[in-house]
Amino acid sequence: MDNNTELLTPETLRLVGLAIFRALGASREEATIVVNELIEASLMGIDSHGVMRYIQYAEEIWSGQIKPGAVVEIVRQTPSTAIVDCGFNFGAVSAQRMIPIVCGKAAQNGIGCVVSRNSNHVGRLGSWVERITSCNMLGLAVVNVSKSRHAVAPFGGREARLGTNAIAWAAPTTGRPIVFDASTAMISEGRLRLHAQTGEPVPAGRIIDADGNPTTDAGAFYGPPPGAILPFGMPLGHKGYGLALLVEVLGACLAGAQVSEEMAQRNGLCLIAINPDAFIGRDRFRALVDDLKAHVTSSAPAPGHSEVLMPGDIEQRTRARRLVEGIPLSVETWQRILAVAKRAGATLPVTS
Amino acid sequence: MDNNTELLTPETLRLVGLAIFRALGASREEATIVVNELIEASLMGIDSHGVMRYIQYAEEIWSGQIKPGAVVEIVRQTPSTAIVDCGFNFGAVSAQRMIPIVCGKAAQNGIGCVVSRNSNHVGRLGSWVERITSCNMLGLAVVNVSKSRHAVAPFGGREARLGTNAIAWAAPTTGRPIVFDASTAMISEGRLRLHAQTGEPVPAGRIIDADGNPTTDAGAFYGPPPGAILPFGMPLGHKGYGLALLVEVLGACLAGAQVSEEMAQRNGLCLIAINPDAFIGRDRFRALVDDLKAHVTSSAPAPGHSEVLMPGDIEQRTRARRLVEGIPLSVETWQRILAVAKRAGATLPVTS
Repeated sequence: MDNNTELLTPETLRLVGLAIFRALGASREEATIVVNELIEASLMGIDSHGVMRYIQYAEEIWSGQIKPGAVVEIVRQTPSTAIVDCGFNFGAVSAQRMIPIVCGKAAQNGIGCVVSRNSNHVGRLGSWVERITSCNMLGLAVVNVSKSRHAVAPFGGREARLGTNAIAWAAPTTGRPIVFDASTAMISEGRLRLHAQTGEPVPAGRIIDADGNPTTDAGAFYGPPPGAILPFGMPLGHKGYGLALLVEVLGACLAGAQVSEEMAQRNGLCLIAINPDAFIGRDRFRALVDDLKAHVTSSAPAPGHSEVLMPGDIEQRTRARRLVEGIPLSVETWQRILAVAKRAGATLPVTS
Repeated sequence: MDNNTELLTPETLRLVGLAIFRALGASREEATIVVNELIEASLMGIDSHGVMRYIQYAEEIWSGQIKPGAVVEIVRQTPSTAIVDCGFNFGAVSAQRMIPIVCGKAAQNGIGCVVSRNSNHVGRLGSWVERITSCNMLGLAVVNVSKSRHAVAPFGGREARLGTNAIAWAAPTTGRPIVFDASTAMISEGRLRLHAQTGEPVPAGRIIDADGNPTTDAGAFYGPPPGAILPFGMPLGHKGYGLALLVEVLGACLAGAQVSEEMAQRNGLCLIAINPDAFIGRDRFRALVDDLKAHVTSSAPAPGHSEVLMPGDIEQRTRARRLVEGIPLSVETWQRILAVAKRAGATLPVTS
């Protein structure tokens, strides 16, 4: 821990976050959902989707992008599917409201699929599939980002045409659920921004410059003229590219969003819940997922590893540690959060 | 074309294949499904899933693994889901019978999910999702392989605990559907076998030896002691590993298969059909997928590429070429196919 980092308790961050979003017009329920989501991401070490987003969300409320209190409603449905209009409420609020819809459909018919319209940033995608496991179901999700945030080149191309499009799934076990959550790009834009600030070279094979040539200079990504992030899996990037396209088909096309057009919405979310009771029963399913976990983790570790982990294990370990040690935030970020709170007219708790 | 390769017309291969499988007890319908599937894969350049499988399938009929004529039936269903017992008929026969089941459920309820039990090798996975697009739907599929064929190490491990587990999707457009089909491993076992035969080094980063160290020697993969294939995406192999686990959860656990146990079944297939008519309507969906395609392919090409392609484009180009030029087969493979035909007592057409 250096002089530029503060360690904050989740409780402090919770009180500050609630004060900000309440002051900006969110209901207690909305503010609680949003703040809890961001703190959980910070606890898990996914700082890019954590409490630093207080700043962005507050700015988006001021600009009219986020509309606290907006109605989230089903605009079209069938027995197993729905389109939900999120009304530009907080993305976490609308995603949370989509969970009982998709799980309810899967409870009735074995599987449910629900897509969003007019959604803001939904935060950590893994959170929503994990929520589906609380209904004793298998969760799948993808999320796209709309055109102005395209940063990833298609395989064989040199211009950004896709977002860092994420795919997540979660399955219940007899213990903690398995939670997988990954982008389909070689690096996140958040991490590139960090490289641009520090000047530290980007690992090879992650980005290209405006001419399509490999570079380790984050500045060449930002341009002008801008470069692009490579699709996940390079040199087999056609696979990551193909998965990124699937995210667009499910997250955008199915919900009626036109990928080539700039839209007010930030994220296109598609949630799928699969009910094991429609197949082999929830108990047998959990036992078989346990067996899968035991099978793969029984492999001897490779050099440089001490054990084989399941998706989500690292995040849970970070969470356990940060619950004790606190959540690290740069002094600059913390000051910016406090400035946002002041501008919002939030009544802050005494924080030290 | 060298002296060790024959060029065969699809028609010759079709007549030979039909003669073999008819002589081995398959009905005309079953033999036609299997032979057409394998020839299509060969035409597309996916030779590992092409007509060389005549030999394997014939041997599996003799050993009792494949049971031509076996009943393929739904053993459990809900409005949107089903478990299909494939009875160890040809994998292609049972997969083909699963298509109207999954599409019928999606036609009724917006989405369908169907999993297999007791399935043999289903062949090219992309074929089944493409079939779903013929119902004007979006298709998703995964296929696992049972334990004795595990060749892929989990991320951080050095022992094989997963198959080369494939993921496929296909979406209708106003033209040819987009068809994505990829394994979650760095290389296929079929290609490794070729490297072992020729002694040509395996590209770096694909396989490890029994100690978990990187190697380019295919012999070190086969051992003894055996090495393993790395999960797709290395150095970000945790992503390919997480997707390979999803294939097991959907392809095995959901259908009741225990991953750690050796089973008579070869493949666990999970098919999902999503009906755009339940969302924004098939015509609008096709138009939006067209727009996505136009958007990504409008990127200027990267150095070394002449254009940005969609998933499946290369296979279609190979298919167009091989329809004219013929399907290349090694003389050895062709002789083995003819020997299988002779042993089966097949009445062969005059082939020159």
